Amino acid sequence: MNEFDFIDQLRRQTRSRRHSARVIKGIGDDASVIAETGDRDLVVTTDLLVEGIDFIRNATPARLLGHKALAVSLSDIASMGARPFWSFVSIGMPRETWDTKFKNDFFEGLLALADQFGVTLAGGDVSETKTGIVIDSVVLGEVASGAAVLRSGARTGDQVFVTGTLGAAAAGVKLIEKGARISGKSEVERRESARPEGASGSADVRPDDDAIQSLLLRQLSPSPRVGWGIVLGEEILATAMIDLSDGLSSDLSHLCKESNVGALIDSALIPLDEDVKHLCGRRALDPLALALHGGEDFELLFTVSPENIARLPKRVDGIAISRIGEIRCDAKTVRIHEKDRTWELKPEGYKHFD
Amino acid sequence: MNEFDFIDQLRRQTRSRRHSARVIKGIGDDASVIAETGDRDLVVTTDLLVEGIDFIRNATPARLLGHKALAVSLSDIASMGARPFWSFVSIGMPRETWDTKFKNDFFEGLLALADQFGVTLAGGDVSETKTGIVIDSVVLGEVASGAAVLRSGARTGDQVFVTGTLGAAAAGVKLIEKGARISGKSEVERRESARPEGASGSADVRPDDDAIQSLLLRQLSPSPRVGWGIVLGEEILATAMIDLSDGLSSDLSHLCKESNVGALIDSALIPLDEDVKHLCGRRALDPLALALHGGEDFELLFTVSPENIARLPKRVDGIAISRIGEIRCDAKTVRIHEKDRTWELKPEGYKHFD
Repeated sequence: MNEFDFIDQLRRQTRSRRHSARVIKGIGDDASVIAETGDRDLVVTTDLLVEGIDFIRNATPARLLGHKALAVSLSDIASMGARPFWSFVSIGMPRETWDTKFKNDFFEGLLALADQFGVTLAGGDVSETKTGIVIDSVVLGEVASGAAVLRSGARTGDQVFVTGTLGAAAAGVKLIEKGARISGKSEVERRESARPEGASGSADVRPDDDAIQSLLLRQLSPSPRVGWGIVLGEEILATAMIDLSDGLSSDLSHLCKESNVGALIDSALIPLDEDVKHLCGRRALDPLALALHGGEDFELLFTVSPENIARLPKRVDGIAISRIGEIRCDAKTVRIHEKDRTWELKPEGYKHFD
Repeated sequence: MNEFDFIDQLRRQTRSRRHSARVIKGIGDDASVIAETGDRDLVVTTDLLVEGIDFIRNATPARLLGHKALAVSLSDIASMGARPFWSFVSIGMPRETWDTKFKNDFFEGLLALADQFGVTLAGGDVSETKTGIVIDSVVLGEVASGAAVLRSGARTGDQVFVTGTLGAAAAGVKLIEKGARISGKSEVERRESARPEGASGSADVRPDDDAIQSLLLRQLSPSPRVGWGIVLGEEILATAMIDLSDGLSSDLSHLCKESNVGALIDSALIPLDEDVKHLCGRRALDPLALALHGGEDFELLFTVSPENIARLPKRVDGIAISRIGEIRCDAKTVRIHEKDRTWELKPEGYKHFD
């Protein structure tokens, strides 16, 4: 039994119990939705990050870990079309880590990202562990009553979109596994010298080293698409949405399963990250495989009904979107069209337990 | 720097930032309080439980661990005078644990306690760990706007009360350290044969074995005082409240510090657990030390202004309360009177990091 099966089992168990009528969406989406007493719904997500599983300590500066812990939860709130407001952090670490500046750097990174989106760190817990750092990041946000964008709202004919570009975070993991590390340059210098995300200039003039550093940052310091989430939710543009945490093949499969539909996507439309294409080209690797099955891009995958496509903004916070396919009901699976053939795209994204 | 100092530092850092005006109480209480859009305030708590630190795996049946993970958070909600509604659980475990029935038993215990208080398991996260089980339990509850009971509301002359009896959970830990284990009897049989909590019959007729099992259950399967929390909050009876998680000496010190007052308590008024007295008597141990400094009783410690004392119910859900002292401002410390002397009661409760 993998974790998705177990979560399905828990979902059935909780459904069979007398439960709060105010739970609009419980187990089984990127976040849970609860009716407030006023005219808003509360959106709640929790994300557990474990050393050695979700991050490698010696490849992950504490400040970036703080950033990422909050970013993954902000991404879940964005994927519900909600606006994030409050962060809670439970963190455990061994005594020898406690005695370093890790905890200060961690919260410095987390609070800097929180400030960027007007999020308040409002509570949490601190504990000791025997070995290894563990973080549970909890974020609460809000949407107008009934306006949360679930995984289950996609309908036949809806067009499938993603924000930004894909494959960079997975390439970053591969680079870390091969021993690449964030350079001594400050992150600010690094970010300033990095190509603007989504820019499509020629990759060939870009030195490998800069491309590598950029991919490491996409893995270690992802940018949650908070602005897009708010626009898609508040303008009632997306019919269904999920964030790309496990990988496109898995996450689109989750969305289709919850919506009881299928999808057909076109490989030529998938927005591959330029740095990934550049480095893969030199190493005879397949950038498409990274984009399809690599996780943690934390882009938003969403569906839009045909009559609303003209209302979609071109960019939000400088990030463009790409149409990659459409929702179909001729089969309840995800299929992909590449050149002159079409095949079923099996979910091959990340699982903890097989 | 211990965790309390670090949490104070974070609290100052978050205060100095532009932050959500809707955060009524952020870092620094048993739970955080956030204004909803309607006529309620949301109360949020997170509690991290780590194997080897917060529980010993071979002494802790999975079902009881599930119960306790929720119980500690329900206790925090109770200590705010709030009503619990929704639970979120992030859980990490190694692959070899995943493949056992641990996860099913854990959630069976958690859901049974949730059902008891009408709480819905509404979400969470699952991850792998390299070694050891880690759980973050998040509970959301509500109070009427402005009615949350903070640590900071105690005033000179208020009387100090605790629910139930003290020292049993700490005695349970000592027994576990000496190798005592929950017997094969089902928990239901055990609970049914156990003396009703708060009963004051003669302890001498009680066999040691039953007393030991009862103390182990007080440690492994605490009963959060949800009913008392709701009554004290909704009837506007408590001026300040905290739950006894770290130990009476530490928790009363936290409450006094937040309220900027002192307290004088009377050792003769402290409600010692009968089983603790019985077993300590046989072993020449001091039950008072366990009651003062032992943590995890998860009783409520609260203050009531003199004019409201007559309105206090005698019992809620069968649990009595005891007046143990009063709030003073002649000194900003906690003092204890025993026989014919009075001394300062230093906080000697549990800390993760000294």
